[in-house]
Amino acid sequence: MDSLAALLFDGFELLDVCGPLEAFGHLSESGRCRVITVAQRAGAVASRQGPQVIADYDFAVCPPMQMLLVPGGIGTRRAVEDKSLLDFIRGRSAEAEIVMSVCTGAGVLARAGVLDGRRATTNKQVFDWPVSQGPRVKWVPRAHWVEDGKFVTSSGISAGIDMALSVIAGRYGREIAEAIAVAMEYEWHRDPERDPFAE
Amino acid sequence: MDSLAALLFDGFELLDVCGPLEAFGHLSESGRCRVITVAQRAGAVASRQGPQVIADYDFAVCPPMQMLLVPGGIGTRRAVEDKSLLDFIRGRSAEAEIVMSVCTGAGVLARAGVLDGRRATTNKQVFDWPVSQGPRVKWVPRAHWVEDGKFVTSSGISAGIDMALSVIAGRYGREIAEAIAVAMEYEWHRDPERDPFAE
Repeated sequence: MDSLAALLFDGFELLDVCGPLEAFGHLSESGRCRVITVAQRAGAVASRQGPQVIADYDFAVCPPMQMLLVPGGIGTRRAVEDKSLLDFIRGRSAEAEIVMSVCTGAGVLARAGVLDGRRATTNKQVFDWPVSQGPRVKWVPRAHWVEDGKFVTSSGISAGIDMALSVIAGRYGREIAEAIAVAMEYEWHRDPERDPFAE
Repeated sequence: MDSLAALLFDGFELLDVCGPLEAFGHLSESGRCRVITVAQRAGAVASRQGPQVIADYDFAVCPPMQMLLVPGGIGTRRAVEDKSLLDFIRGRSAEAEIVMSVCTGAGVLARAGVLDGRRATTNKQVFDWPVSQGPRVKWVPRAHWVEDGKFVTSSGISAGIDMALSVIAGRYGREIAEAIAVAMEYEWHRDPERDPFAE
C-alpha cells in the first residue's frame, strides 16, 4: 500500500491539506493508499483558519512515503526559515515518487531547492512570494497545475483537488479517480492548463 | 464576533468539515467570525479519510454559537444512534441563527427531528439513507443546496463549499464572499438549483 504524507506547519491553509487528503483518503478502504500527516512535532498543528489537525509523526520517525504533499498558507513564510523542515523536504523528496504542492507550498519546495531548473506554478494572487523563494525555478504564470518529473505543483484550492484527482488517475487508473470525484460530488476540472485565476 | 461550530464525530467526511471551515475561517482575521469544533469529547476525532481533527470543546462546555455545521461521512450511521449528539443538535439548533449540513449530515439533522416539515437536500449518491432518517422532511432530489428558514442543507463536497460562500454572502456581504473565493482560488458555483450530480 502507498503512503501519502501531508506536511503540516503552524498556519498551514486548511483546505490545501484536506482537499487532496479527502481524495487520496478514498483509496484507503481499497488498500491502495493511506494518508498520514507529519510535522516537526507530532500532535496538534493549528491551521491558518483555526482548526487544528493532528500530525501523526514527527520528522524523525515518519515512515517512508511514496508521495509527499506540501500545503500553502500564511505559515509558509515562517516554514521557509525552518532548517529542519527544509531538510525533511529535501530528504523525502529524493525518496518519494511524487511530490505535490498546493498554493504557496511551491514556495517552500522552491526554498528547499528541489524545484531548481524545473517548471512549477503557485497561487496567482500571491505569485511574487513563491517566485522570490526560487530564482532558479521556471515559474509558470498561467497553469492550473504543472507536472515536471516527480514534482506536481498546483495553483489554489480548486487546483489542488483537481491535481490530486489527476495524480490518482495516473497512478491508480482513471476509473478510480472518476468514482472518487462522483462519491465526493466534486466537479473535477481535468485540464491542467485551464487557469481561471491567472491574469 | 460570530461563532461557527462544526460538529465532529468518528468517521466524519474530512472535506465536509474543512471545506466550509476554510471559507468561514477567512473571516477570522477581520473579526467577523471564528470557527470552532465540537464533539462528544474534546480532543482528536478521526475522519473517515484517516486524518484527525481536534475538537476544541465537548458538548457540555461548547460556547454559544450563531451557526452550526453538521458534516456527512460514513460515521453518520453511528452518529444517529447517539442520543447525546442528537440532543446537542436539537438544543443548539434552537439557539443558532443558521444550521448547515453537508452531504449525509442532513440525515443526522433529520434524525434529530429539526428538519421536520422543512425542505432539505443531501448527497445524491446515497440519497436513500438520509431520507430514511426523516420521513417528515420534504426531501428535494435535485438541488445543489436548499435553504428553508435557518436550515441550509447541501449536496456533496462542492455544494458544501458553494453553500458556505453563499451563506457568507448573505450574512457579511457579497463582496466579502467574492474576495474569499478568489483568495482561495475556488470556483464558486452560485446557483443553488444547479445540481450536476442528480440523476
